[in-house]
Amino acid sequence: MSEVKLISSIQNPLVKKILLLKEKSRERKKTGLFVIEGQREIELALKGGYNIETVLFCPEIASIDAIHPLFEGLNPKFIHISPQVYGKMAHRETTEGILAIAESKPHTLDSVDLKSKTPLILVAEAPEKPGNIGALLRTADAASIDAVLIANPKSDIYNPNIIRSSVGCVFTNIVGMGSTTDIIKFLKQNGISIYSAALTASKKYVDCNFKGASAIVVGTEATGLTQEWLENSDQNIIIPMQGEIDSMNVSVSAAILIFEAKRQRGF
Amino acid sequence: MSEVKLISSIQNPLVKKILLLKEKSRERKKTGLFVIEGQREIELALKGGYNIETVLFCPEIASIDAIHPLFEGLNPKFIHISPQVYGKMAHRETTEGILAIAESKPHTLDSVDLKSKTPLILVAEAPEKPGNIGALLRTADAASIDAVLIANPKSDIYNPNIIRSSVGCVFTNIVGMGSTTDIIKFLKQNGISIYSAALTASKKYVDCNFKGASAIVVGTEATGLTQEWLENSDQNIIIPMQGEIDSMNVSVSAAILIFEAKRQRGF
Repeated sequence: MSEVKLISSIQNPLVKKILLLKEKSRERKKTGLFVIEGQREIELALKGGYNIETVLFCPEIASIDAIHPLFEGLNPKFIHISPQVYGKMAHRETTEGILAIAESKPHTLDSVDLKSKTPLILVAEAPEKPGNIGALLRTADAASIDAVLIANPKSDIYNPNIIRSSVGCVFTNIVGMGSTTDIIKFLKQNGISIYSAALTASKKYVDCNFKGASAIVVGTEATGLTQEWLENSDQNIIIPMQGEIDSMNVSVSAAILIFEAKRQRGF
Repeated sequence: MSEVKLISSIQNPLVKKILLLKEKSRERKKTGLFVIEGQREIELALKGGYNIETVLFCPEIASIDAIHPLFEGLNPKFIHISPQVYGKMAHRETTEGILAIAESKPHTLDSVDLKSKTPLILVAEAPEKPGNIGALLRTADAASIDAVLIANPKSDIYNPNIIRSSVGCVFTNIVGMGSTTDIIKFLKQNGISIYSAALTASKKYVDCNFKGASAIVVGTEATGLTQEWLENSDQNIIIPMQGEIDSMNVSVSAAILIFEAKRQRGF
């Protein structure tokens, strides 16, 4: 392990750098770095093959014995921080005493490596709320699907609220990003059938066969999918709704569709 | 319509009363009243048979012509409020210019009237986050299930964050509340099979038959269901998870289970 430095002033430039990385998508883009909070999230990032540059931990809060084994064979910079410095950088609900600076992955469509011949893919078009994106990634992890593609993304996926609400599943999924046009092209080139969820569709999702290579596509709650998806679908599908309201949370709809596909595939 | 009063001071006692009703569960309990924000939510409450005592609206924001027809044949007290007073009382994201004071319903188990001979019921034990409760109610509405029962509730359901996150579905569902013991008794007395979701279960949910009278029971993400549910189940069930993490958002799990039951029942 490299030498351990101590930071006890919130005026330290590294503290400022971390706050910037947490707050500014632009800063993350410029540097190719982002911040991970929490031991479990860091573990999942390591499992997901992320390179961790710096580990900051507060010995008064975190157990060093629990943390060091995670980095066996790796060589991140370790920095001790005071509880005050930790409190300044950490999300208020987190009390784990550990943060890390990691290198982002590209997430281009070219980088999406599909191992299955009949992949199951989730596409979300322009999802807005970090909580929804986190929930989608969590469901995608639980179902162990082949990739999550974000069409016309509104933000990068290393937003701290996305990482937190995904409970680290942003690191365990293969995530690709691109324009709706490029993702449709990617799916067609790979022979993947497109099933677009739309309130205007008449085909029930339970009447579709998701056993072949399938992409399930969901839009935003407010406006649904763009016309481009609906026109390029192999099948537009609907989840029948029989109540007073006509929409469900996007992460709930996606989970219903993905787990129907999983059921058909026998898990 | 009764006489219209104008309130333009945030010091007005009614303004203070509304703020108390929004903030304090105790105050709602004591008075039997609660506050609804937004036209759609008020409409759903009226559809759900709620009695609305007072309507406060800001003519500078809300359209009177759109609001009056909602109350045809009813006789709530109408009060005009200034934009400043509205701003003081309303949730910041709401810009609809309308609030109402309504009478709560009892939500005892006795009040739960099951019309179907093979009801489909969702039970949530001790759900904590208002956003999760709202999402559960939204899914329950979409699936048009027979009742939502909340076991060992942590709060009343008229918390403004629950109303908002349910997009008014707190009013469209039949909601009953009681202890776990009492709800189990209620279900058994009514001949309703209990399916408790548990990570320790081995029976996959897709291998169960939900066509008969069924209650799907979900616990919290953190601790799952209490032993009492697991021991009193007809069947403990699991949603197979194949990723790195071992839990899903409770509203997502509930939706997967409910819509599998709906699929089996042919919607």
